[in-house]
Amino acid sequence: MLRFGVLGAGRIGKVHARTIAASGKARVAYLADAVPKAAADLAAEVGAEVASVEDIVKAKDVDAILIATPTPFHAEQIEAGSNAGKAVLCEKPVSLSVERIEQCLKVVEKNRTTLMIGFNRRFDPNFGALEKRIRQGAVGEVELATIISRDPAPPPADYVKSSGGLFRDMMIHDLDLARFLLGEEFVTVHALGSSLVDREIGAAGDVDTAAVHMQTASGKIAVITNSRRAAYGYDQRIEVHGSKGMLRAGNVHNTTVELATAEGFRGDPILHFFTERYGQAYANEVLAFIDAVTNGKQVSPSGKDGLQAQKLADAATESWKSGKPVKVA
Amino acid sequence: MLRFGVLGAGRIGKVHARTIAASGKARVAYLADAVPKAAADLAAEVGAEVASVEDIVKAKDVDAILIATPTPFHAEQIEAGSNAGKAVLCEKPVSLSVERIEQCLKVVEKNRTTLMIGFNRRFDPNFGALEKRIRQGAVGEVELATIISRDPAPPPADYVKSSGGLFRDMMIHDLDLARFLLGEEFVTVHALGSSLVDREIGAAGDVDTAAVHMQTASGKIAVITNSRRAAYGYDQRIEVHGSKGMLRAGNVHNTTVELATAEGFRGDPILHFFTERYGQAYANEVLAFIDAVTNGKQVSPSGKDGLQAQKLADAATESWKSGKPVKVA
Amino acid sequence: MLRFGVLGAGRIGKVHARTIAASGKARVAYLADAVPKAAADLAAEVGAEVASVEDIVKAKDVDAILIATPTPFHAEQIEAGSNAGKAVLCEKPVSLSVERIEQCLKVVEKNRTTLMIGFNRRFDPNFGALEKRIRQGAVGEVELATIISRDPAPPPADYVKSSGGLFRDMMIHDLDLARFLLGEEFVTVHALGSSLVDREIGAAGDVDTAAVHMQTASGKIAVITNSRRAAYGYDQRIEVHGSKGMLRAGNVHNTTVELATAEGFRGDPILHFFTERYGQAYANEVLAFIDAVTNGKQVSPSGKDGLQAQKLADAATESWKSGKPVKVA
Amino acid sequence: MLRFGVLGAGRIGKVHARTIAASGKARVAYLADAVPKAAADLAAEVGAEVASVEDIVKAKDVDAILIATPTPFHAEQIEAGSNAGKAVLCEKPVSLSVERIEQCLKVVEKNRTTLMIGFNRRFDPNFGALEKRIRQGAVGEVELATIISRDPAPPPADYVKSSGGLFRDMMIHDLDLARFLLGEEFVTVHALGSSLVDREIGAAGDVDTAAVHMQTASGKIAVITNSRRAAYGYDQRIEVHGSKGMLRAGNVHNTTVELATAEGFRGDPILHFFTERYGQAYANEVLAFIDAVTNGKQVSPSGKDGLQAQKLADAATESWKSGKPVKVA
Repeated sequence: MLRFGVLGAGRIGKVHARTIAASGKARVAYLADAVPKAAADLAAEVGAEVASVEDIVKAKDVDAILIATPTPFHAEQIEAGSNAGKAVLCEKPVSLSVERIEQCLKVVEKNRTTLMIGFNRRFDPNFGALEKRIRQGAVGEVELATIISRDPAPPPADYVKSSGGLFRDMMIHDLDLARFLLGEEFVTVHALGSSLVDREIGAAGDVDTAAVHMQTASGKIAVITNSRRAAYGYDQRIEVHGSKGMLRAGNVHNTTVELATAEGFRGDPILHFFTERYGQAYANEVLAFIDAVTNGKQVSPSGKDGLQAQKLADAATESWKSGKPVKVA
Repeated sequence: MLRFGVLGAGRIGKVHARTIAASGKARVAYLADAVPKAAADLAAEVGAEVASVEDIVKAKDVDAILIATPTPFHAEQIEAGSNAGKAVLCEKPVSLSVERIEQCLKVVEKNRTTLMIGFNRRFDPNFGALEKRIRQGAVGEVELATIISRDPAPPPADYVKSSGGLFRDMMIHDLDLARFLLGEEFVTVHALGSSLVDREIGAAGDVDTAAVHMQTASGKIAVITNSRRAAYGYDQRIEVHGSKGMLRAGNVHNTTVELATAEGFRGDPILHFFTERYGQAYANEVLAFIDAVTNGKQVSPSGKDGLQAQKLADAATESWKSGKPVKVA
Repeated sequence: MLRFGVLGAGRIGKVHARTIAASGKARVAYLADAVPKAAADLAAEVGAEVASVEDIVKAKDVDAILIATPTPFHAEQIEAGSNAGKAVLCEKPVSLSVERIEQCLKVVEKNRTTLMIGFNRRFDPNFGALEKRIRQGAVGEVELATIISRDPAPPPADYVKSSGGLFRDMMIHDLDLARFLLGEEFVTVHALGSSLVDREIGAAGDVDTAAVHMQTASGKIAVITNSRRAAYGYDQRIEVHGSKGMLRAGNVHNTTVELATAEGFRGDPILHFFTERYGQAYANEVLAFIDAVTNGKQVSPSGKDGLQAQKLADAATESWKSGKPVKVA
Repeated sequence: MLRFGVLGAGRIGKVHARTIAASGKARVAYLADAVPKAAADLAAEVGAEVASVEDIVKAKDVDAILIATPTPFHAEQIEAGSNAGKAVLCEKPVSLSVERIEQCLKVVEKNRTTLMIGFNRRFDPNFGALEKRIRQGAVGEVELATIISRDPAPPPADYVKSSGGLFRDMMIHDLDLARFLLGEEFVTVHALGSSLVDREIGAAGDVDTAAVHMQTASGKIAVITNSRRAAYGYDQRIEVHGSKGMLRAGNVHNTTVELATAEGFRGDPILHFFTERYGQAYANEVLAFIDAVTNGKQVSPSGKDGLQAQKLADAATESWKSGKPVKVA
């Protein structure tokens, strides 16, 4: 039984704590949140004790730290957990600053502790199955991947201001997926961005509609499009082309019901947003971490994966601002 | 160049005459129709001469007769053509009377001439490809077939009165398809019929909604449903289950365009009726006849196929009226 | 908190006990099973006490009985629960004997207690949504329903012998669905059955491939096909035609991944069997029961629904054996 | 009856001449080709006379010139036709040189004659229906379009050398479609290109895999991906996102047949290449030209559309070579 300290009892913290509690292979020993009632309620539900972050990190009866706090706390909490010898699973991103991530990863490396980053989409059953089939050679040598990600509706402009911008806040998932699918590093990034959905987002210095394309040293190409609006639900699709064919993973509809009338054939909208679409992915992510830590396996995605995605997000942001392609080391 | 005499310049006569003229392997030499202008217009279009049925049948420079006249003329025209030594392609059915068909087939048999019946659906590119794959073993041994056929809207009650009823007029196509797909004769037929779409059809002594299931001596089952109404277009589907899996052939939509909005994902209605859906099938049917006659191949569907389908249609009609299953010899 | 006594800790008993335990609105107070270890393990998991059926039925701190024992025990356990004033949720069927069911329902009626029958498919999110839209008038007046149900592979011949036969064991679900979708009673049933999948099933006096069609007094038609074999997974589909169009609910695939190569476009098989396909349906069923009992709502499907489905299954069995259509009162 | 002079009796010349001959509204009066037999055969088929390009252009009994000769002849033949007062339908492109196109368009403008450019994809029934629905407001204000175009297999390296390169030879169709769908001019173009399919294409100084994204002054974005390889057929798709939703137009499969086995659900490959996929589009294009010229309507796409697409293709080529985004006037 792996003993977890869970930092953060917000939306994602709850999802993860419940997965741990129901896993049969781990339990939540301690739980911290800045809002005492949030911590107490979730602790009661999953049979954990409320404690401070400091005490949890130091606790002898804690094997692993799950970080689901706001982004500004991630790096220092990873370092604290690592310094205490704990395995850490941290929600993305480690930090909005590449330098801060590099600093943090050095600490983890020095301590030789485990750090996994919560890029949940790698664990989506559809995307995961697709990637596995790429590795099995189903499409031969990969040549081009396209990733579509559209939120159902724009976030409040306030959120946007502290988010790091669309490329760092939203597209970072797709940038990670692109690396995951192609299995190569990108060397060139070019971004286009527009504010077409919500003028306040533009006024806040961000974009709500964006396209990025990237190329690896061997010439493989990834194309990503993002939007903060999709009337028909949370649009999450992948398409990968290779020498032998194409693999794609589509959206999941609310039901399989279809209505045919004189107006045509109408199917349901797709699952509304990330808690619906990626519910299973969140669970798979935590279970993969538990399995890796328990059985001494390599965790994935690693801290380095987190760093590389952040570098690509920075490059995309810079490209959008300058209008020029950006080289990535 | 196979030289055709075409009897009938109505809707289907036109379709067939144009196919012959464009085939590059045959031509329409003569054309007859009870309406002189119809005959003259079509003859001008396809480069044929207008003549009487009698003269066409006797003409030395005619190799084949295509019969697209009203049903009551079919049997005698087949006999006349056969007696004159011509190959005949006759639109379904030979007659609404099984006895009359048997009589007609005896004449053809005695003359050893060629007779093909125009069950156009066997030549639909989708259904034809499906049947070919059954024969190639794609689903192993066939166990059960379901056929769905729904017209977009009911015909006038007047038409219904002289049609022989839904089972002989509409379902006969599906009864032929069932034999085509299973490759075995049915020994038991049970039918249900209702008048739900148009009360006048019921008042005229017919049904507009029907279900038939049939069984072969070896236990294979076919299920057919028919309706005179389908708001979304001409619904024509086949599904065949066998020991190794299922083959199905679906409808063809007007376009591939799909609209996704908050209401869901909407595709086009399907092709509206038989001239749209089976345009290619009609052409393939005539080309297959030309090929068979020109190259001395067996024609299919044969006169016997026409006879068997009619027997099943009679059995279904009798079953609907009596409420009891009917054995077929 | 509704307090449950759960009878039976087998496959379905487990599913239901876990749903109750996770519902937040009810709990498993007691649990009985003929196999002591099965009872003890499940009791430990859901925080219940092991007890005998007799003690559970009598227990003052039990509000509701969930019956997931083998079929032969159902009727007497329903009666015992009802006599003790408990609400009862019983897995289908109440009994393989219509007379026994009628006897049992009289007891429940006399006691004026609650009885719900576990026809899980009514609670499938796809089928449930389809039925709701019929009620909302999406297809106008319903005219014809087709139901396809195919198991992935045949059960052992031994199972078949004690099952009551395909019509009572397997098709009963579809017979209930047909009533659910059409909202009318059927007056005529005609069945075809064959043994094509496994000769031992035929030798055991049963069929493995079957087609039934039924008609209501107003002329509505339902068509059901069943098979004990489907290489591509558990095939569960519904299609309902009405005056304004068609509603259909299809299968659920393992993932949305599609591979396109020179051989074509290949999607995943569908969910393998009932625990995968109807997992959510089982949960919804128990939650609906909890809601109805807690809030004094009418339960559905009722004991009468169980009775009517059994009558249809008997009629189908008789029709298959006699070859004749059977009238249902 | 519009009287055509057709220049070129190659693959596309044949397609167009047959459309004219079958249109009932126009005829091919004269036909020219550098290969006398090609001209003679096609002339015989469509009932035309063979003549020289010079004679056709001058002929009094010619109203319109259809140019289906190799690209290097287009501009001068357009000018000759225009100078003779004929309406001209010219296959894309007018020229690989933007300057030459501008020079040619000045001649046409001075003569005030009609010039239509054969961007056939605008006339594809699927793409055409999609564009019509954009104009009707189905997706509200357009924000982002993605266009996928993949050939089934790479052309010979020899062809590549004289083609102007992928961006001018292949992507030009998609660049035109992007303008067609968004209804705005693009101001920025950035291109990525790789040689992954056939090294000889790379050696010949071209690419076989490419991604371009472009932005309009108002911020609308178009993303295009191209490849010279698609194992599953000629991949031609459009997806347009707007404020109210998405419109997409997919591929057309060989048949609607689907096979379900233990390996999953397999549908047919898509139509193999442009003659299959765009057969109807080619016909619609010529019929639209006939209609416009006969009835004094505006032709579309115009010479200016041809010019703008060529400018975008040049910009994409330059961007690929320089690695930098290119501004378009």
